[in-house]
Amino acid sequence: MQSPRHDSVSRLIFELSKLPGIGEKTAARLTHFILKQPEDYARALSEAILNAKQKTSLCQICLVFTDTSPCPICSSKERNSSLICVVERPTDVLAIENSGIFRGYYHVLHGTLSPLEGIGPEELKIKELLSRIKQSSGSVSEIILATNPSVEGEATALYLAKLIKPFGIKVTQLAYGLPVGGLLEYSDKQTIGRALENRMEID
Amino acid sequence: MQSPRHDSVSRLIFELSKLPGIGEKTAARLTHFILKQPEDYARALSEAILNAKQKTSLCQICLVFTDTSPCPICSSKERNSSLICVVERPTDVLAIENSGIFRGYYHVLHGTLSPLEGIGPEELKIKELLSRIKQSSGSVSEIILATNPSVEGEATALYLAKLIKPFGIKVTQLAYGLPVGGLLEYSDKQTIGRALENRMEID
Repeated sequence: MQSPRHDSVSRLIFELSKLPGIGEKTAARLTHFILKQPEDYARALSEAILNAKQKTSLCQICLVFTDTSPCPICSSKERNSSLICVVERPTDVLAIENSGIFRGYYHVLHGTLSPLEGIGPEELKIKELLSRIKQSSGSVSEIILATNPSVEGEATALYLAKLIKPFGIKVTQLAYGLPVGGLLEYSDKQTIGRALENRMEID
Repeated sequence: MQSPRHDSVSRLIFELSKLPGIGEKTAARLTHFILKQPEDYARALSEAILNAKQKTSLCQICLVFTDTSPCPICSSKERNSSLICVVERPTDVLAIENSGIFRGYYHVLHGTLSPLEGIGPEELKIKELLSRIKQSSGSVSEIILATNPSVEGEATALYLAKLIKPFGIKVTQLAYGLPVGGLLEYSDKQTIGRALENRMEID
């Protein structure tokens, strides 16, 4: 990445290329798109960035980014308080909400255990999860560990399961299997293996 | 795309998802990245967007976005004034400059002819190119048409060539052939065909 040059086009390319997955070429493309839009868009985007950063904080309960703490999900009385779904990132909450299936509450870990990168249990929001379970005085009956199906996600789920089970709470994990709409032919062998192991009877 | 909701996280996701190639999921990922950075980054990015939009205009000569018109390239006296390289977009200027090979001047068309999308010669900066050639009073000896190797890019190059040739100026086009570092095995048949047609003798 180049150091910021003095003209405003290069400066915007430089700032955009710090975003994840945005290389210098994509940053240049985005910059020129912004320059071609009416000034309203540049102003709206610019304000949205600053507003989001300045007005949001972590929800005191589930730790998503929110304007109001507790967040709208944690404030809702219409959800199932016996279920907590533990996810790695705030974006995972959006993904699960979009499925429309889950009506319990969430807990965001803000990462996964990763000894190689120096991320241990203290770096994650595990203490907060345990104190939430303690304070629930038995109203939580199931914790769904919805970490990603990766080595780190699995390791984190196993670590959490060991910590949670002593509370006498059921600990579950998302099912592995073929993705909906996917093709068997293009699925990797681990996925097919898991789909076979977890096969279900058709009634 | 969803309509902007009232909380600042959704609003930023909404504004970012208007960018080209950024879907709602990527926008959510970028939003959460920005939220995790120190406030300095949000402020720098926000300012860079507004600054770039407010301070830049099209260079009066080559039509790139620039803080100062004429732009640094057009202001330079050290380039070859007999060469003009015509490109579709401002980002193409960056790509060619990065190659370090070209030392002439540029002209940005801001698009390609595309009858299906209702883009005719009037929508492009063609008039500006022709008046530039007229005003050069014979100092321009070659126009390089560096449009993209697409149907629209080719059609635009052919159209421009017809307009420019009456001025008695040499009109050239970028070479077609195998990309450097590419594999023959993975190249499409048109590219291989052109590479064969344009084969060069090794001395």
